[in-house]
Amino acid sequence: MQKKTSVPYYRIVLLGSGNVALQLGQALRQNGLHIAQVYSRNKDHAAALAAPLKATPVSSISKIEKNADLYILAVKDDAIAVLAKKLHLKDKLVVHTSGSVGMEVLKPASSSTGVLYPLQTLSKSRKVNWRKIPLCIESNSKSGKVLLKKIASRVSDETLWITSEERKLLHLSAVFANNFTNHLYVIAETLLKKKKFPFRLLHPLILETALKATELGPVAAQTGPAIRHDEKTIKKHLKMLASEKEYRPLYLSLSKSIRKK
Amino acid sequence: MQKKTSVPYYRIVLLGSGNVALQLGQALRQNGLHIAQVYSRNKDHAAALAAPLKATPVSSISKIEKNADLYILAVKDDAIAVLAKKLHLKDKLVVHTSGSVGMEVLKPASSSTGVLYPLQTLSKSRKVNWRKIPLCIESNSKSGKVLLKKIASRVSDETLWITSEERKLLHLSAVFANNFTNHLYVIAETLLKKKKFPFRLLHPLILETALKATELGPVAAQTGPAIRHDEKTIKKHLKMLASEKEYRPLYLSLSKSIRKK
Repeated sequence: MQKKTSVPYYRIVLLGSGNVALQLGQALRQNGLHIAQVYSRNKDHAAALAAPLKATPVSSISKIEKNADLYILAVKDDAIAVLAKKLHLKDKLVVHTSGSVGMEVLKPASSSTGVLYPLQTLSKSRKVNWRKIPLCIESNSKSGKVLLKKIASRVSDETLWITSEERKLLHLSAVFANNFTNHLYVIAETLLKKKKFPFRLLHPLILETALKATELGPVAAQTGPAIRHDEKTIKKHLKMLASEKEYRPLYLSLSKSIRKK
Repeated sequence: MQKKTSVPYYRIVLLGSGNVALQLGQALRQNGLHIAQVYSRNKDHAAALAAPLKATPVSSISKIEKNADLYILAVKDDAIAVLAKKLHLKDKLVVHTSGSVGMEVLKPASSSTGVLYPLQTLSKSRKVNWRKIPLCIESNSKSGKVLLKKIASRVSDETLWITSEERKLLHLSAVFANNFTNHLYVIAETLLKKKKFPFRLLHPLILETALKATELGPVAAQTGPAIRHDEKTIKKHLKMLASEKEYRPLYLSLSKSIRKK
């Protein structure tokens, strides 16, 4: 971790105005880094994000400055390659923030490319502790590696060099730990609604489940009818789910998968 | 919530020596309630739990006192009915703590029966905040209702009267929110291990996922390739899971279920 007292002056251009752009932009700024420009096709979006970051809003590609030290494409996966083709930044470092897109799609934009993938779910409305977010970094150039490491370390205490292949694996595991987990919460909420119970009743359980897995490890934390081969309870549950064409097969396959462990 | 200053003196007999017996026994004691006896078939287990609870250990059914105010059967689901048949307590309140077992299995033990089901995952090694645990209560007798409500309210601020049917639904939803969720963490850990990444990398994501769902609600919190119909990423993931006979179908069925929302 670098000391906050000695921030070199880097010019950073942030492209995008979604959750990642907002959160990362704020984290960079709070750690003494300077966002020169915020680009978004949508003028209002560019202005809305540029204001809190004290950056210049830009909504035309031609207005993007050519001499910044770092260009961060924090846009949707599909937009990365499209945007990269429109940028001509010679050897300036150009990175994206996606978990699943290859680094090579940035080639049209610059000879120096990289990735800065934050392993976290980011929303506009929620503050997260960036110091603890693993920042997965990658670059094809020596100078890019030096700069990316410096900048990532300003924001987080957990920077790690990984390959594109490793990043995609991390992203896949995050889909299980975040997207699919959240969907199970959705199912639980749907079940509760049948008897008009509020989701709030499950809050302590959900939080303890997450804490327990991080503290004991998920294998040690596993409980429930499937792991103890309690067929009687499983049968009861399947009966209760008889009319649930969607949840019943999920209950079955998840239980089966637990029993295989 | 009752004031802690006026605890009436109740004699409570705790049957069982597992996670629930330990945690509930401690919670009762910390809230000024008195555990008279701890029963376990296993003498050592009875002694081990009785000591911190300042109770008398008992390992023979005949030694269980007949005149306690409340008997709590905190034993495994299958053991509840077996144990109830051995107890002859006339009209003393006898309750169990299970989410999925009916109240009627307690009938052989007493005319006054009930359930005290804590909607939480309990382990020996982890302290939980009992004040926030929803305690689902049920009783077949008027006197049982009065006593159970009094005692549950001493331990938690969230006591709720529910029927056996409702309790079973809560238990089923808890299987999704806890057991199945934890299994997804296990899968995520297994995937990380392929590249020797520590599970620790997912800790911030897992904790934020849980917090976010409790604060925004799980429907609003849902993200990922499935909800945004990002078929390209889904295809990449399925390819990565090609050799995973177990996880690939889970990925597919969970993604399908998310898209149906």
